[in-house]
Amino acid sequence: MPNYTATYTDLYQLSMAQVYFNENHHSQKAVFDYYFRKNPYQGGYTVFAGLETLLENLNDFQFSKEELDYLAGQHFEAKFLSYLKDFRFRGSIYSVLEGDVVFPNQPILRVEGSLLEAQLIETFLLNMLNFQSLIATKARRMRYIAPDGVLLDFGLRRAHGPGGYYASRAAFIGGFNGTSNVIAAKQFDIPVSGTMAHSFVQSYDDELQAFRDFAQNRPKNCVLLVDTYNTLKSGLPHAITVAKEMEERGEKLMGIRLDSGDLAYFAKECRKRLDEAGLSYVKIAVSNQLDEYVIKSLQEQEAPIDIYGVGTNLVVGKPDAALGGVYKLVAYNEEPRIKISENIAKITMPYSKQVYRLSLADGPWIGADAVALFDETEFDSIYHPFDQYKSMKIEHLEKEALLQPVMLNGERCHAPKSLQAIADYSAKRFAQLPLEYKRFSNAHHYKVGISKKLRDERDALIKQYKTI
Amino acid sequence: MPNYTATYTDLYQLSMAQVYFNENHHSQKAVFDYYFRKNPYQGGYTVFAGLETLLENLNDFQFSKEELDYLAGQHFEAKFLSYLKDFRFRGSIYSVLEGDVVFPNQPILRVEGSLLEAQLIETFLLNMLNFQSLIATKARRMRYIAPDGVLLDFGLRRAHGPGGYYASRAAFIGGFNGTSNVIAAKQFDIPVSGTMAHSFVQSYDDELQAFRDFAQNRPKNCVLLVDTYNTLKSGLPHAITVAKEMEERGEKLMGIRLDSGDLAYFAKECRKRLDEAGLSYVKIAVSNQLDEYVIKSLQEQEAPIDIYGVGTNLVVGKPDAALGGVYKLVAYNEEPRIKISENIAKITMPYSKQVYRLSLADGPWIGADAVALFDETEFDSIYHPFDQYKSMKIEHLEKEALLQPVMLNGERCHAPKSLQAIADYSAKRFAQLPLEYKRFSNAHHYKVGISKKLRDERDALIKQYKTI
Repeated sequence: MPNYTATYTDLYQLSMAQVYFNENHHSQKAVFDYYFRKNPYQGGYTVFAGLETLLENLNDFQFSKEELDYLAGQHFEAKFLSYLKDFRFRGSIYSVLEGDVVFPNQPILRVEGSLLEAQLIETFLLNMLNFQSLIATKARRMRYIAPDGVLLDFGLRRAHGPGGYYASRAAFIGGFNGTSNVIAAKQFDIPVSGTMAHSFVQSYDDELQAFRDFAQNRPKNCVLLVDTYNTLKSGLPHAITVAKEMEERGEKLMGIRLDSGDLAYFAKECRKRLDEAGLSYVKIAVSNQLDEYVIKSLQEQEAPIDIYGVGTNLVVGKPDAALGGVYKLVAYNEEPRIKISENIAKITMPYSKQVYRLSLADGPWIGADAVALFDETEFDSIYHPFDQYKSMKIEHLEKEALLQPVMLNGERCHAPKSLQAIADYSAKRFAQLPLEYKRFSNAHHYKVGISKKLRDERDALIKQYKTI
Repeated sequence: MPNYTATYTDLYQLSMAQVYFNENHHSQKAVFDYYFRKNPYQGGYTVFAGLETLLENLNDFQFSKEELDYLAGQHFEAKFLSYLKDFRFRGSIYSVLEGDVVFPNQPILRVEGSLLEAQLIETFLLNMLNFQSLIATKARRMRYIAPDGVLLDFGLRRAHGPGGYYASRAAFIGGFNGTSNVIAAKQFDIPVSGTMAHSFVQSYDDELQAFRDFAQNRPKNCVLLVDTYNTLKSGLPHAITVAKEMEERGEKLMGIRLDSGDLAYFAKECRKRLDEAGLSYVKIAVSNQLDEYVIKSLQEQEAPIDIYGVGTNLVVGKPDAALGGVYKLVAYNEEPRIKISENIAKITMPYSKQVYRLSLADGPWIGADAVALFDETEFDSIYHPFDQYKSMKIEHLEKEALLQPVMLNGERCHAPKSLQAIADYSAKRFAQLPLEYKRFSNAHHYKVGISKKLRDERDALIKQYKTI
């Protein structure tokens, strides 16, 4: 799969890098924060994903001779290109752990390195973290609403080209049980699953014969698609016949799949007839434009569904389809940096910072994180970033530092984590988030406050730039 | 970039393939159609893209030893895996040419081959064609509304991982002028462009010095980002100063970029001040959540904008984010095949077919295509697929056959086309589409009619299956 070389970037990163190089700024120390301003899906949280992908590919983020030749043809200078020949990312990365729940306007990951290297990786970093976080969050919303359902990703055919590879990875982090995507399953060790297509049934003159052949060739995990011609008059009776024949061979039909029509109605009707036929063990799988709202509705109607196959809406993260994460310079040459904006929410937060998750002494999260200067140890209150009248005492609370070193001077700090370990951690963290942040409508606003020192330092910088 | 091996598929394709193999159906001849049921963006057309990507990667669609070992671990049988070792796609593909405008419920591409090979490529084919067509269509909508604007793709950071590579390709087919995406530009020979980021300005103590350094290092194609601190009080005056200094060196500032605030207001104000300073040649570029509607609004306000940098909404194809193209079995073992559905629009169209674009003798398209049996030569009327009272005489019209052989028995019929040639063809074809199909609201419905013979044969098949 993709080889992420250093032209996996926007041209302006290279244009700026050449200026840095020529002006001899390129080795100055720079600090960038990755964060976003709005949770996707009008929700109350975001599941952070993509970190492992970023870390494992940074080593390949180099320029090949062919790439340098291309850049030479784009008017880059020989001296600069010769410097790029040996380019490697040798910076440091501090990050929230992959799978954790994160919130708007808090640093999720910080890059420290030379100005040139920290700038060059921006596009790749955003490309990977934004997308996977979008999809992991979508998956988590479905897992939340169907805690006992089997959730399967069937989306590769509607994914954004090879983006589907990472959609399957992110869906597993967000709580999905498996995927139909073979290459992703193989790479990331995700349980792989699937049923049959309409074309299989169509290729036979006779639906019953199609089911028989499938069951005989695939006695384990056999799921029959029953809606090619007529679900209740043809597909289901044929599936029951085959299930009975399987019983005679000492086998068990695993399930049937419904892919059209009113899924609640058909699931109930099929469940009833399966039960009447003594086939209460046969599971019911559904698919067809599912998302968290359709699944919620099916559950509210008490549709007896065991397995949800989710495609398009999962893998493209509809309706948002993008997470607007940004990567902003917060310090340069040991000095804090800020970007002013007419939109107050878009003013950046200067300095290297740490983020603390706040909880009561006996464990429960309180629904607020604190952002402070990185080396700030003592602070007993947090403040709303812009509303001077809002503050909260936090001296009695536990503070868990979220930004941990994951790469130091280009070397990873830990062995790669398995996807299963990341998914387990994600489930654990999500379980700690209070319910009011999980609902689909008007989710409670998780607070991200800042320390007094950070607020004061930032305000001084704003004043300084406002006088320009 | 991605290596598309044969596990780039859904598991069920392999499950079904094993049954076909065991039952000795795998070599039977099968015909599949690719089509979609609804234009994206509630529009009146779709730009077909992704064909060249499909064709050039089908050769690599093979199983490596490592992949076969993985499948062995997933309970596939040794005899079947041994057969897959030599798997190559050796089928034939007939397709609309890449870049053409296409419409719902017409075959856009037809695959003929053994049942096994035609089935195995389904997921990859859909993954590539659906996504690139979605993005090419989005791009075309912006090109349509800004015929003279320079349109640049800046979206990689918000794209779906490596899907961004193909988003840049598809945007160029849809009429974009260039991209910031270096690796895609290099691969597909797309003009590459970019300006500077806020971080560049922030890394200096002084905005003016930042602009000076950038201009000195990049005298050609120099575009200055003017909104880091204050557009009208700081950014623009500094840009004018630098433009004047460039003039003294015999150079010309190419442009300024606005990335926040009210773009119409700022563009007008900047244009006025630039003109007053004798800098009427300095172009104005804008970015920040653009899409076809924002561009339309900017044009209606007569905002003097020369260059549009479009990111998120282009590369993720918002708000649709997916094109629901499907791949359906229409013939097997020389017999027509159909899938019945309670939703009449979802009943498939059996038989190998040809699609004809209808035009008047002197050229103009009439807003209708005809679908007929592939070997049908004489037909003088077309019929609505389901409304028996709607038909149209077409004997006086020119009929251009759209499905052309592009691969025969696994061999490409033509040399690969350059992306520029595809984009040129796309622009030419779009220009032939009458205006009423191009508007954003309530676009006219382009007719896709079927021949009498096709209708009668399909109806006979429906009857046959309804009696089951």
